[in-house]
Amino acid sequence: MTVHLVGAGPGDPELLTVRAARLLAHADVVVHDRLASLASSLARPGAELIDVGKRPGAPYPQENINALLVQLGRQDLEVVRLKGGDPFVFGRGGEEALALAEAGITFTVVPGVTSAVSAPAAAGVPVTHRGISAAFTVVTGHRMTGAESVDWESLARVGGTIIVLMGVAHRGSIAERLMAGGLGGATPVAAVRNATRADQQVVRCRLDELATARLEPPCTIVIGAVADLDVTAAAASLTPAVAR
Amino acid sequence: MTVHLVGAGPGDPELLTVRAARLLAHADVVVHDRLASLASSLARPGAELIDVGKRPGAPYPQENINALLVQLGRQDLEVVRLKGGDPFVFGRGGEEALALAEAGITFTVVPGVTSAVSAPAAAGVPVTHRGISAAFTVVTGHRMTGAESVDWESLARVGGTIIVLMGVAHRGSIAERLMAGGLGGATPVAAVRNATRADQQVVRCRLDELATARLEPPCTIVIGAVADLDVTAAAASLTPAVAR
Repeated sequence: MTVHLVGAGPGDPELLTVRAARLLAHADVVVHDRLASLASSLARPGAELIDVGKRPGAPYPQENINALLVQLGRQDLEVVRLKGGDPFVFGRGGEEALALAEAGITFTVVPGVTSAVSAPAAAGVPVTHRGISAAFTVVTGHRMTGAESVDWESLARVGGTIIVLMGVAHRGSIAERLMAGGLGGATPVAAVRNATRADQQVVRCRLDELATARLEPPCTIVIGAVADLDVTAAAASLTPAVAR
Repeated sequence: MTVHLVGAGPGDPELLTVRAARLLAHADVVVHDRLASLASSLARPGAELIDVGKRPGAPYPQENINALLVQLGRQDLEVVRLKGGDPFVFGRGGEEALALAEAGITFTVVPGVTSAVSAPAAAGVPVTHRGISAAFTVVTGHRMTGAESVDWESLARVGGTIIVLMGVAHRGSIAERLMAGGLGGATPVAAVRNATRADQQVVRCRLDELATARLEPPCTIVIGAVADLDVTAAAASLTPAVAR
């Protein structure tokens, strides 16, 4: 029937959109990854939950997920494909949408609150701030070479906030390349883990300390003058010590 | 009592978060701009609605909005400050948060679905897509010089999707500087107006046509190979004609 590609937001169930919650409550099948408790608590009793999350030996590379969605969409079922954050921000929502479109399956896309912005916010860091940052770049850090990698040296010169997702493993070379591009070693960094959840952790350091900072994946890493702000603390600084 | 800085998403009332809808339904006062119908349809009957939207002669520069929120927050009131998109994406949420924090007012920040990602999505454009774009930059186009302006030539070299908000007026110089930085004139562009609403409009062109494209503000302008995709159309192309 219809497949809905739905963003689930950063983790807090109240940060789903009204539409996402409504679709989940009516779905016959929910296809999810790493969102098992969220899916099971919001889906209606009796809905089928299929976990396609990545793990060793899991039978679900992306092509199989696409095929599963097409196969489910051909049946008389309301299907929710639940994705963390927003389906189009490193969520492979585009690939699933194309697979459904090519198979002639009716589908909708329901945007969600992206962790790229809401994880920094949960740590009191606004990704833009008047007089400090009028731009932000969201980039994956899991590939440092190849067609999909960005020019980190140029990125250092753009002049806005940099938000790195999936960047813990390569944080040393990311910092190195940004500094090679001209970002100062004292540029503030904030790394947020489990944003918006009860076990949220925030690590703050300087860019030249990022390589050795104790971080566990997954983290959202914010680099730039705004990372020094904590607008949720009364002692928040309006004029961060370190400008770009 | 408490002031909630709440993101309202791109315009469709169902794209508010569950928390935003709940807070709106219980607020005593709703302070909003350009979201009058959304605020009035979702607030409880009897709630006070204050429109602080920009218009000629309006008495609400940012400092007055900050002062208003502080004044309301000192009373025994639940206050929702409703903002389009996400409060921290060019929403001046950071400034309002700091004003509240400095005045000792209890407040919360409720992230929203940002138009920077959801407006392209509504036009079938995923801001990231495997093999095409592994990064995106969101930037305002309303100031081309000064401390807050970005280095557009460097941005052209980063290698990801570029999303320009408030860029209609300066679209000619934006295109020129991006091309000076090395982006090809044939780079695809999609401009989305009134995203997710019934009167949504999408204009597609090449980067070297952007200056003369018929656009009316406000638009979300997407620049990059993904702008050629329309994943909501069955005829969507997996391999856009124009690579970077």
